[in-house]
Amino acid sequence: MKPWDNVISEEEIRAYRAAGFGRPSGLGIRPALLIIDVQYRTVGTRPQPYFEAIKEFSTSCGDVAWAALPHIERLLALFRKKNWPVLYPHVAPKVQHEGGRLAEKVPAIMNIAAHGYDFVDTIHPRAGDVLLPKKHPSAFFATALASHLIDLQADTLVVTGCSTSGCVRSSVVDAFSLNFKVAVPHDAVYDRSATSHAVNLFDMAEKYADVASTDELLIALEPIEARA
Amino acid sequence: MKPWDNVISEEEIRAYRAAGFGRPSGLGIRPALLIIDVQYRTVGTRPQPYFEAIKEFSTSCGDVAWAALPHIERLLALFRKKNWPVLYPHVAPKVQHEGGRLAEKVPAIMNIAAHGYDFVDTIHPRAGDVLLPKKHPSAFFATALASHLIDLQADTLVVTGCSTSGCVRSSVVDAFSLNFKVAVPHDAVYDRSATSHAVNLFDMAEKYADVASTDELLIALEPIEARA
Amino acid sequence: MKPWDNVISEEEIRAYRAAGFGRPSGLGIRPALLIIDVQYRTVGTRPQPYFEAIKEFSTSCGDVAWAALPHIERLLALFRKKNWPVLYPHVAPKVQHEGGRLAEKVPAIMNIAAHGYDFVDTIHPRAGDVLLPKKHPSAFFATALASHLIDLQADTLVVTGCSTSGCVRSSVVDAFSLNFKVAVPHDAVYDRSATSHAVNLFDMAEKYADVASTDELLIALEPIEARA
Amino acid sequence: MKPWDNVISEEEIRAYRAAGFGRPSGLGIRPALLIIDVQYRTVGTRPQPYFEAIKEFSTSCGDVAWAALPHIERLLALFRKKNWPVLYPHVAPKVQHEGGRLAEKVPAIMNIAAHGYDFVDTIHPRAGDVLLPKKHPSAFFATALASHLIDLQADTLVVTGCSTSGCVRSSVVDAFSLNFKVAVPHDAVYDRSATSHAVNLFDMAEKYADVASTDELLIALEPIEARA
Repeated sequence: MKPWDNVISEEEIRAYRAAGFGRPSGLGIRPALLIIDVQYRTVGTRPQPYFEAIKEFSTSCGDVAWAALPHIERLLALFRKKNWPVLYPHVAPKVQHEGGRLAEKVPAIMNIAAHGYDFVDTIHPRAGDVLLPKKHPSAFFATALASHLIDLQADTLVVTGCSTSGCVRSSVVDAFSLNFKVAVPHDAVYDRSATSHAVNLFDMAEKYADVASTDELLIALEPIEARA
Repeated sequence: MKPWDNVISEEEIRAYRAAGFGRPSGLGIRPALLIIDVQYRTVGTRPQPYFEAIKEFSTSCGDVAWAALPHIERLLALFRKKNWPVLYPHVAPKVQHEGGRLAEKVPAIMNIAAHGYDFVDTIHPRAGDVLLPKKHPSAFFATALASHLIDLQADTLVVTGCSTSGCVRSSVVDAFSLNFKVAVPHDAVYDRSATSHAVNLFDMAEKYADVASTDELLIALEPIEARA
Repeated sequence: MKPWDNVISEEEIRAYRAAGFGRPSGLGIRPALLIIDVQYRTVGTRPQPYFEAIKEFSTSCGDVAWAALPHIERLLALFRKKNWPVLYPHVAPKVQHEGGRLAEKVPAIMNIAAHGYDFVDTIHPRAGDVLLPKKHPSAFFATALASHLIDLQADTLVVTGCSTSGCVRSSVVDAFSLNFKVAVPHDAVYDRSATSHAVNLFDMAEKYADVASTDELLIALEPIEARA
Repeated sequence: MKPWDNVISEEEIRAYRAAGFGRPSGLGIRPALLIIDVQYRTVGTRPQPYFEAIKEFSTSCGDVAWAALPHIERLLALFRKKNWPVLYPHVAPKVQHEGGRLAEKVPAIMNIAAHGYDFVDTIHPRAGDVLLPKKHPSAFFATALASHLIDLQADTLVVTGCSTSGCVRSSVVDAFSLNFKVAVPHDAVYDRSATSHAVNLFDMAEKYADVASTDELLIALEPIEARA
């Protein structure tokens, strides 16, 4: 059972299989964890249904964010145990006159309260983690993410956070283009649209990344050597 | 009626409206046309149903490509009349040992016959057009597309071709991040999955681009001044 | 008289002329001003000879910085009068564990006092200017500078600040590669080495930019139309 | 004795030492060799003095190129023996209407005879090497060089070829910014200006790379493990 089974038809799956898409990339030997935009502005300060949650922050994803959080926490715990690098691409508070195209497409995004930009407590960065403020969908765009990954000699990225159809998707495409191996745990990413979440996971699985559950991914990562 | 109306639920639409997504970017005054990957390898040498078409080229999209072609041709005709720039990001033949992540995810893509890389005759480039061979989903990645657009002082991109969920989507995200205004004519882009086509159009309309029919877009472009 | 006349030999000049280098690019019609790294850390809090100045900040350039400041101020005044965009790429305070290659080559750079990162008072940004924190030589690397310039529809960059052989040089090369027209006022950029300053101006004049005095550049810019 | 000893004054060296520049980066454990623009267009078909050589190709560097070739060959031989990756950023033939800023600064560059673009025979690529056509100074700009280096898990670049003040310099700055360790063998890079060659080596040694003779570099590389 894949997350997109009720959205993508059997014939569409058959079409991709016939064209040879969707083979696994596998994992390398130096993984890094990206936790993208897991801030109160996308989660809310407590679990609430979507239409309640957006009254707190218009960018909140509501219940689905809280469902993803424990999976992100389990992945983070493994990365801490293994001493593997953890990087936090995140949205920094907006400056009004620097809005560009974003301010036109999603003007409400320019007016989020300051505490919305805090990291969610249970996945909070610690000293030594890499913090990457960003203003664009991809965590690579206009940031030093590639430089950090090269410095860390990472070969594999595990991508978590939100939104599946926004920053996760575009970061995965750039990571793929840069020739990192990419794994997306489908229950550790979240999105305000269930359909878009499912289809973006399908797109990534067919073209850019290995998509699996956090359970499956933890099993695959466990044998990889820790860092000193 | 939007292309995603039968795929994205009314409640999902309502969720995006409530969060303030999907406002129009509008058009600027110096448009450029991107025709992405409209080569026989994605179209086939004649109209055929998908499962027939992929026997010729595994990367073919079949009938949906032939349905999009007349719309691309009409847009191209307007750009020719207005003397606006036309750029052709396209896939160059593969070199086996340079496959990277792509060769792992979609190995069949490494073995397309040479004439598959020719441009489709009815949208063929002419002298003065910019040809951009690429090896990655985004037309901006590892190409001089941004340099050309700056040299041309373009402020608006009309993005056509394929696939909606692959090179079109990722090029649109990069164009948005670079602060170009982006318009996607939904009937002039094509994809091997109808569901993924619809959802990627939805994602782009909500977050990155203005999505309209070619008819609507031609009307909006017509009043913009020609180039000398 | 060029700034490199006592450093580059006549035969070397002749060699470049014979090979056809060094033609002018000219100016466009939408200039933007880059003021790079004009912070107390590169200037010092008062004019002092170099070996005194570096006791305050090891990154200070001493007297040559104070000689350049009035020229930067004159250019800034014209850009204010014309309502043309002004952008401030600048170094943000360092985070120790994020040093990468820089911390190896120039470890002293990791320990500059906080007030060294303030902008020099006479060229201070005002509301509406674009501030671009950076960690690498080029003002384009891992920043949204290209996105801002596209949003502003700039076609010409006037590059000032420091150091001529470091951030100015590498920003100019990237601007040239992106197809902006680039002008470098040689008396409005500064460097801790007079020889390196001269030779980098020569390199830029031959290959990437138009190099002139601030007086000459002000005359060339004056007729260009103001922004609304 | 450093290559810049007769060009950069003792006081300037002292100024850089006092400010803490120029510490070594050292070598990593997975080196890659860049051979930049070592084509007949920069070398000529036979050794000749500069002013003779440019009659064959205006972009030729003459005798200094032939002096550098044996050093590049020795480095290449070690990389072949060790089975380490070799990459060839090179200039592809120009297309007239795509000249951009380059065609303005150096118009003669648009008219080089086709055989000038061939690789010099003694350093010719073999099957499996990565060929990277480029149109801009940096070997990273608008190419997939970073993607290849990540796929190869390289951590160290040895940069050879030409010109020291052009493509070598700008590639080194980008490699440094991406956090690769960079070594420049000063007798395996060449330039049409002896002064600019020396000063660019100085700049790179102080800020971006370790600069040494090919002899020294071969000794430092020899103990590093071969690739399977």
